[in-house]
Order: sequence, then structure tokens, then C-alpha cells
Amino acid sequence: MRSYNELSKEELLQEKESLQAAYKKYQEMDLSLNMARGKPAPAQLDLAKEMLTAVNPEEMVDAISGIDTRNYGGLDGIPGAKELIASMVDADPNQVIVFGNSSLNIMFDQVTRGMITGYCGNTPWCKLPEVKWICPVPGYDRHFGVTEHYGIKMINVPMTPDGPDMDMVEELVKDPAVKGMWNVPKYSNPQGYVYSDETVRRIAALKPAADDFRVFWDNAYCVHHIYDEEEKQGHLLEIFTEAKKHGNEDMIFEFVSTSKVSYAGGGIAGMVASDKNLEDVKKTLTVQTIGHDKVNQLRHVNYFKTEGVAHHMSRHAAILRPKFELVEKRFTEELAGLGVGSWTKPLGGYFVTYTTVPGCASRTIKLCKEAGVTMTGAGAPFPYHKDPEDSTIRVAPSYPDLEELGQALDVFTVCVKLATVEKLLEV
Amino acid sequence: MRSYNELSKEELLQEKESLQAAYKKYQEMDLSLNMARGKPAPAQLDLAKEMLTAVNPEEMVDAISGIDTRNYGGLDGIPGAKELIASMVDADPNQVIVFGNSSLNIMFDQVTRGMITGYCGNTPWCKLPEVKWICPVPGYDRHFGVTEHYGIKMINVPMTPDGPDMDMVEELVKDPAVKGMWNVPKYSNPQGYVYSDETVRRIAALKPAADDFRVFWDNAYCVHHIYDEEEKQGHLLEIFTEAKKHGNEDMIFEFVSTSKVSYAGGGIAGMVASDKNLEDVKKTLTVQTIGHDKVNQLRHVNYFKTEGVAHHMSRHAAILRPKFELVEKRFTEELAGLGVGSWTKPLGGYFVTYTTVPGCASRTIKLCKEAGVTMTGAGAPFPYHKDPEDSTIRVAPSYPDLEELGQALDVFTVCVKLATVEKLLEV
Repeated sequence: MRSYNELSKEELLQEKESLQAAYKKYQEMDLSLNMARGKPAPAQLDLAKEMLTAVNPEEMVDAISGIDTRNYGGLDGIPGAKELIASMVDADPNQVIVFGNSSLNIMFDQVTRGMITGYCGNTPWCKLPEVKWICPVPGYDRHFGVTEHYGIKMINVPMTPDGPDMDMVEELVKDPAVKGMWNVPKYSNPQGYVYSDETVRRIAALKPAADDFRVFWDNAYCVHHIYDEEEKQGHLLEIFTEAKKHGNEDMIFEFVSTSKVSYAGGGIAGMVASDKNLEDVKKTLTVQTIGHDKVNQLRHVNYFKTEGVAHHMSRHAAILRPKFELVEKRFTEELAGLGVGSWTKPLGGYFVTYTTVPGCASRTIKLCKEAGVTMTGAGAPFPYHKDPEDSTIRVAPSYPDLEELGQALDVFTVCVKLATVEKLLEV
Repeated sequence: MRSYNELSKEELLQEKESLQAAYKKYQEMDLSLNMARGKPAPAQLDLAKEMLTAVNPEEMVDAISGIDTRNYGGLDGIPGAKELIASMVDADPNQVIVFGNSSLNIMFDQVTRGMITGYCGNTPWCKLPEVKWICPVPGYDRHFGVTEHYGIKMINVPMTPDGPDMDMVEELVKDPAVKGMWNVPKYSNPQGYVYSDETVRRIAALKPAADDFRVFWDNAYCVHHIYDEEEKQGHLLEIFTEAKKHGNEDMIFEFVSTSKVSYAGGGIAGMVASDKNLEDVKKTLTVQTIGHDKVNQLRHVNYFKTEGVAHHMSRHAAILRPKFELVEKRFTEELAGLGVGSWTKPLGGYFVTYTTVPGCASRTIKLCKEAGVTMTGAGAPFPYHKDPEDSTIRVAPSYPDLEELGQALDVFTVCVKLATVEKLLEV
């Protein structure tokens, strides 16, 4: 079929009719499918079964530190857990604090600390007239949720396949009110892009006006490749190595978790930071808690010592790969060449971004919803839920099984086409 | 022996000499004993061994809610965990949110929320010129640490065996700057007192000037009896039942944890609150995390369904009871009638408070330290670490085994006597 742009009004009306017929058929199927959230599928969760029994009740004392994991203490985590977290992002274990099960919670707490306590002696942001934040868009909705919660003014910076527009970022950090920047540098949410070496180097070399400007480096998908072959994997420069070249190691907070390695609901998460920042964080942390769940840390250490993170992730990939390939296949078969949008082809992570013709994203999502397919809400990948072009749709293929995913994609592709035809007929 | 107060100077000098000789002997023993923190002993941690394998890898989906505990979701906890937490304090499971492993962390987050977000639409405290907090003293050092961290002005209110001086509390809450009150209502830290029915009723009936005044009800030792016989157990009125009689249920935040039930380093913790407060908390919580560790919640639910909390706590009591009885025995044998202080005789919890002659606590603790026995730091149970009388020592007998505890008590009793004699000779 020719591109919709080349069709006459009559041809468009004909196409609309045939799409509506197909759509009606799906509606009658009473589907209930979900491509909304980046949740691991049950089959992926089954992979870590043996972790559940990976602690020996007679060996609960950490061999290296002598810490009894069952008791109080060990504020920054047991050594093996620091090593595990560090190994996932090529960091130094001495620069790691291990927290509970949620890296989002660590990030939330860091922003909270900036607001109310201030970083390293700087003025708490709640005392300032305005605080601004750099938000590469489209980005991760829950990041934007944190900064929105605190009334921080979010500034959109466009993402490219190489990362955020660094010319803009370099300009923005000259404003002392700009205190932070969200990043998912590897297999970005929602595009699956990997920051290029140049982007990482430019971020590492930033000269922000604010002493308390921090790069929030959410390395959520650090080991989450879809392919085992190294040449088919994204490569990200280690941020602290680069930052140190510019004396900028205090500018970086890196976040890591096993949420999509072991369990989304029962993993461990960590933060990597410079000595100065670690000391600063611990001043609050020591008031906040006596320590995080070290038994779960030990469980992770024991399990991954035997299993190996890379090997384990390869088993995840085997489940995810056909799903991503199915998205690519269906989009190509059903949508390529029609002028109805474009999509990303990630090598890792949990998402594909579909970019519709401007003004068609929310309509597509609504059509999907009414045919029983839940997508991430329109605008979600943008600050304040405002997609300026109304063209971004986050596609999350991980949770449904292949058959359900196929059905959901059938519905989605019809909805995209229908929304586009409707839009073209408006003119 | 007669009371030291009745001794002549010469007799005191003689007593001093003999105490110094005993003290020197202990110093030469090169001891390293600890009665500083309320940590469960390894033998207590061994009790919950079977909890480590209490989840079945094939049954990870919560039976009641259908939540896969391994995946994202379930922000407020799985139903069974709410029931478990509620059962420990006779609360309604519908009023519970289950968090991670640390109730201190929940309390910290609640104070943080008051500071930066404000409760139920009230002005965030960071925007106010001054915020004050009622602190029954002696109290729990980590409570005071939280309010100190945020620069909240702490006001001492004396504790009695029936709870805080309620005349003072009723007066203080007339000040709209007073926003909160710390409480460990049952087996208080560090005395082991239980709030009387009258105290609970008067707290429940408070008419604070501030809409956003909250009673922080840290029911840390709710099920932590030392004796199995009911008549030897403390009884605490259920706070929400009382508060509702005055339409005051929005004034209470209750905190519960299994830290000293299952594992201090790997338990679960919860908060009990009114519908209005739960809704308010969830507005922040939904931004802060996708959910706490539900696998660990399931582990607790499964284990305690079979084991029973009361039965499990009775096994803890069997380990703790001889330790508390040894403290009582040694104090009576070595210190009673000498005019060197008094001590509490708790029926539960983790601490005994020893009250020295004014001006002798820090000296006693220093003498202990120099003979290899670590006690909680002088002043710790008071805001700003300032014990106005320098007379309070928190004794934590749980961690050492009976032999070590006996040695530590030998040292302690000699140090108390020596410090008192020194003080009397100063005059």
C-alpha cells in the first residue's frame, strides 16, 4: 500500500472504513491486554527461583565483614552486595551504598534531601525561589513524577539516538537554579537509546553554575541486553571514570537495581557516588534507618555468585528477544511505508517508542483502550504529562506472552492507522 | 552495708579504695562487653530460621489479592502482611500500609513529609518560623535524632511509670507550633514503662491547636513480653479505638515492625493510620516507590501463619527473661539500699533504666568504657544528648549471653558505686 499522504480523500475514506471494520472485530473480542508498564513476565520471574532458598540458615553471618545479616547494623550494605551492584555498572564497590528494593525510592530520597537538607552544605532547595531540572524527553514518567511532586520546574530537552541534546544541556546548566538532570543512559526509557561516548564525555565535563547540580544517572538497564552477541549490545562509557578527568565526580549520582534482574518486587538497589557525596548521604541515612534488609542482600550475593549476572540476564534475554522481534516484525509488516509514524529498534531495556504523526498519540491510545488494550497513558513520558506534539507512545512488550502480545500489536497497528486516517481527513 | 549517704568521709575513702581495687581487677581482664544497643542475641535470631525457606517458589502469587509478590505493584502491601501487622497491635488491617524493613525509616519519612509536603494540605513545616515537638524523657535516642536532624525544637516532658506527664502535654499542645509527640507507649525505651489507661485516654482526647499535630505512636514492643503469664504482661489500650471517641483518629500515626520478632535486619514494618491520613501518605508514597519488598512480606505471612506471633514471642521471652532477671538480681544484691540510684523492672521490651545519683551517669559510663564495657552514651536518651541531671543510664541486656552479661553487670555495679563515692567525696 502507498503512504497515506499520497491517498486521495476518497481512498482515505475507503481505508478508514476497512480499518473501522477491523477495529470493530477486535472490540467484539472483549480483549484485556496490557502493554503499559515495563513489568517482567512471570516466566522471567521464574528464572530466579533458586534465589529464594539461596541463604543457608546456618550461614547468615557475612563472611567478609562478620556482619550478622539478620541483626541491626551495616548501614551501607554488606561487602558482597556492594560488589554485586558495582559489577553491574563497572563501578568501584567502595563507592556503593546498598539500599532496599527500590532505586526509585533512593532517587526520591536524594531529591528530598536536596529539597530539605541540601547537598554538602548547600542551601536546601525549599529555601530557594525556584529550582529547575533538565528532563530529556521523552523520558521515564516516574522520574518526572518525583520532580513534579516537589514543584521543581522541569525543562524539556530533546532526546536523540545519541542521548540528550548536549548543546542545550550545556547552555541550561549555566543557570544556577538548574539543580539536576534525569538520565536513563543505557537502553533509555522509553526509546532504548544508548548515550554515545561523546554524550557521556560532554555530560562528564559539564561546568554547572550550581555547586549542588547533580546528574541523576539511572542505570536501570545496565545489563539488560536483548542479544547475547557483544556486537549487538549497547556500550556505555563508565560515567565516574569520565567525570574524574574533569574533577567532576561529585556531580554524579548513579543508581542501579536488580529489580529486572532478580525480582521487581524483592530485589536490592544501590547508589554509586563520590566519597564526598557518600559521606553527605550517610549523614542523613544514619538518622533515617539502622540499615536496609541485609538478609535479602545476602540472598542476592549467594545466588549470583553461582549463577552469574551475565548468564542470568542472557536467560531473561531469551524470553524478551522474541517479544521485541515480534514488535519489530509487526510494525514493519503493518506500518512501514504508510507515513503513519516511526519506531525505535532497541538492543536492550524494556521499551520501544512509537512516534505517530503529530496529534495522533492520544487518539491511538484511546482507540486501543476501547478495544481492550491498555497502553502507557498519552503524555506520560513527558513532564506534566504534556507531549507537545502528541506523538509519543511508549510500547512495553515484556509482560504479555507472545500470543497476547501478537493480539495487542494487531489492535495497536490498526488503531495507529485509524487515528492517522482520521487526522488526515480532518484537514 | 549502710547507705553511702550515712558513711563518714573516712569510710567513703575506704570504700573508694576497695572499689578501685575491684575496678582495677576488671580493667586487667581486658574485657570487651556491650550493653549499648537493643539488639536481639544470635540465639533469638536463630528462632526464625524456618522463615528463610517459608516461601514456596511455585506459590509466589498472593492467594487473597492475586498479586505476584515478585513483580511490581501492591503499593500498600499484600493483604496477609497487613493482617499480620494489624494483629500485633489490635488494629484494623484496612488501616495498615506495609513498608520495608525499618519502622524508623517510616517515621523519618513521615516527619520529612510534614517538613516538605505538609500533612493533608497543611503548610509544610519548613515554611514555618519554628516547629516544636513533645519528647517524653528519657526516650528513644533515634526518635530524637530524627527531629534534631530537621532542626525541630524538642521539648522535654518527664516520663512517669504511667507515661508522660499529661498535664504538661495538654498545656503544650495549645501552642500551634507544636506539631508532634514521640511515644513508645508499651515497654517504653528506655524504662520499660507501659502507658496507663488514663494516659492513653488523655492522649486520645488531646485538643491540639495545630490541625497537623500528630501523635507518633511507636508501638515497637507491642508483643515483646518477658513473661508468658498474662498477669505479668503490660496492657495498653488500643489508641485508635480511644481516639475515635473524640473524633481524633486523624491525629494518630502508629508504627509497628517485626524487627525484634523475625529479624532486626530483614523484617517488615507498617504504619496504621486513619483513612484520611492513609490517602495523604499514599499521595507521596506512589511517587516514592512502586512498592516495597512483597516477597519478604509473603515470607512473614507464611511463617507466622504456622508459627503464630504469640508463640514465637514466647520463645524470644524464654531467652530474654533470664537476662532481665539477672539484671534485677545483681542490682538488688549489689546496689539496693546503698543510695547509689534506682532502676526499673520492666515486664517487656529491651531495656532497663538505671537512674544514678545526679551527676554520676556520664562518669559511670566512662568508667565502664575504660574497663571494656560499652554502655549507651551518656545523655543519649535525651534530646540534644543533654541529660539535665546526668543521671540516666540505658541498660540493654539482650545481646550478650548470660555469662557475658554477668561480667558486664559486675563491672557496671562497681562503676556505679565508684562514681557515687567520688561524687560524695567532692562535696
